[in-house]
Amino acid sequence: MASSGKSPEEEHPVKAFGWAARDASGVLSPFKFSRRATGKKDIRFNVLYTGICHSDLHHLKNDWGSSKYPLVPGHEIAGVVTEVGSEVKSFKVGDKIGVGCMIGSCRTCEDCADNLENYCSKKVLTYDGARYYDGTMTFGGYSDHMTVDEHFAIHWPENLPLDGGAPLLCAGITTYSPMKYFGLDKPGLHIGVVGLGGLGHVAVKFAKAFGAKVTVISSTPSKKEEALKNFMADSFLVSRDTEAMQAAAGTLHGILDTVSAVHPILPLLSLLKNHSKYIMLGAPEKPLELPVFPMLMGRKIVAGSSIGGIKETQEMLNFAAEHGITADVEVIPIDYVNTAIERLAKNDVRYRFVIDVGNTLKAA
Amino acid sequence: MASSGKSPEEEHPVKAFGWAARDASGVLSPFKFSRRATGKKDIRFNVLYTGICHSDLHHLKNDWGSSKYPLVPGHEIAGVVTEVGSEVKSFKVGDKIGVGCMIGSCRTCEDCADNLENYCSKKVLTYDGARYYDGTMTFGGYSDHMTVDEHFAIHWPENLPLDGGAPLLCAGITTYSPMKYFGLDKPGLHIGVVGLGGLGHVAVKFAKAFGAKVTVISSTPSKKEEALKNFMADSFLVSRDTEAMQAAAGTLHGILDTVSAVHPILPLLSLLKNHSKYIMLGAPEKPLELPVFPMLMGRKIVAGSSIGGIKETQEMLNFAAEHGITADVEVIPIDYVNTAIERLAKNDVRYRFVIDVGNTLKAA
Repeated sequence: MASSGKSPEEEHPVKAFGWAARDASGVLSPFKFSRRATGKKDIRFNVLYTGICHSDLHHLKNDWGSSKYPLVPGHEIAGVVTEVGSEVKSFKVGDKIGVGCMIGSCRTCEDCADNLENYCSKKVLTYDGARYYDGTMTFGGYSDHMTVDEHFAIHWPENLPLDGGAPLLCAGITTYSPMKYFGLDKPGLHIGVVGLGGLGHVAVKFAKAFGAKVTVISSTPSKKEEALKNFMADSFLVSRDTEAMQAAAGTLHGILDTVSAVHPILPLLSLLKNHSKYIMLGAPEKPLELPVFPMLMGRKIVAGSSIGGIKETQEMLNFAAEHGITADVEVIPIDYVNTAIERLAKNDVRYRFVIDVGNTLKAA
Repeated sequence: MASSGKSPEEEHPVKAFGWAARDASGVLSPFKFSRRATGKKDIRFNVLYTGICHSDLHHLKNDWGSSKYPLVPGHEIAGVVTEVGSEVKSFKVGDKIGVGCMIGSCRTCEDCADNLENYCSKKVLTYDGARYYDGTMTFGGYSDHMTVDEHFAIHWPENLPLDGGAPLLCAGITTYSPMKYFGLDKPGLHIGVVGLGGLGHVAVKFAKAFGAKVTVISSTPSKKEEALKNFMADSFLVSRDTEAMQAAAGTLHGILDTVSAVHPILPLLSLLKNHSKYIMLGAPEKPLELPVFPMLMGRKIVAGSSIGGIKETQEMLNFAAEHGITADVEVIPIDYVNTAIERLAKNDVRYRFVIDVGNTLKAA
């Protein structure tokens, strides 16, 4: 994919249209740009639905200091193939397709060899500050179409809805992958899910599908009914209810913590049985306080996990289709996106916004 | 072993002698007390050597708030059997014996069933604030003889020195057990050992015996030569040498952190390869700062571990004997113990004090 004499612009002959933020205000507005021609191993596809991930907020406002503008967000993308390169083997025009958080990796390192492209130090993110191998900036799925190397495309299972399925490309794999890797996918385990937002509600669904007993731990008492009735969680703990937390001490085989705000983990660690695992999926900006003594006394594990590899993302999507798992979504038109971002910042969404790109994004 | 009408004192007919601290000054002086009669499953043994563990300091000075006085420390104990109860099966008079950090556990919980008595919530520590099942206080190995339930006694391998072997009952199992449990015992791994003290130097020896490449990380540059020449470590990093630490980023499969002072773990986590494990063995009094982002991006694990079960302690001691592993010790007479404690507080020991109890502890 290396350039040969032409400038990146010359190699990007295909007009594209999306919504972009121009600066750290994060406000999105219509944006004309271009995408590369369909390479031999590339797939071109029309975007139909794109989820709004909480990390989109951070990227839009440059909270992590890595944002480059103009910035077209979107890494939870479902679409339909419109063109395939001459060497593309497993996709054809008309196929439904999913693309998640990354569109490239080195393909040679140990992690890539282990189908863990998500941990490749040279991976290329779907958008934001990332540069593709031709040196051009990547643009995400708040746009009409995309071009992606076949390796980073997911086959869409036939019976999985595109709108509710799109968020699984990030929220789904982010929760599914650690449950598999850390052995929290065995029937009969008792799993805690901290935070009932975009990630958390999907984590509950996967954990239930694996056959776990699930306890939701949240700072928001009003989510109890949703957790128990909508998502069939087995119990609910309000994290500030010291008495209830103490009564539940030592009951969990594993915890998935989806909270990205700084929060105390000691009371959560106390919920774990000995030799059990606390998996962090959110990324607080500041370090958390790690109490060492309870870790030693119970041989407890604290670990991090970030999305998942392409092979596992395919497995996850197939598993979701088999078990009828989708995100609970509020589908919105593209011109509602700034309002949606504001509402998301206030956690005012049940549980994921998904932009109906296919029907509402039109070039002016 | 429940009492039957008699007071604990009446049930403790055997005169014993040791050195005890009477208050949180921690100063030790001669102390007469008594031990229980030899029960059916009990072994009585003469103490020959007892290691001075760093945790003895904390207990002596009530740093952890759990100390009860008079306090007879000592949980790294090697001795010789003088009497066995009628139901004792695997020890006879004259056998060499080891006793470590605990002398009792519930024997019925999940951890006990898994030979993890060290994680039993009802375990009885060898000394300090612990009460045996008859309600009396336990006294450790800074004493002339002890009585112990056969289950908590270790068979002493024939060719293992008693003086250099005694510290293995705590320092040895504390480092050996997590290497086994967390899969850090495979040949060819690159293991980091943080801190080259009582635990650290033994950790290096076990890691080398497992076939690992070993890097010692220490804040004390002067320990480099000892690490490389005495303990055959493969490399040495000064933790404050930012450049050297950065050059070593991503090279380690596992880290054993033996430091019990509060210290930053971010630079140490950076030394780990993706999907690798950081095991905490020291117990800082305050929480450490846990940086979440690098944990997520590398799927890294931070875990705690505390000593080991009785079965594994026997395996460890056998392994040490097979591989010629002992602690490097400075053998002292009992009347030097207060000076030794002072020196230990200043890390002025290479690498473990061991009291020659058998030859130097005499009742006045």
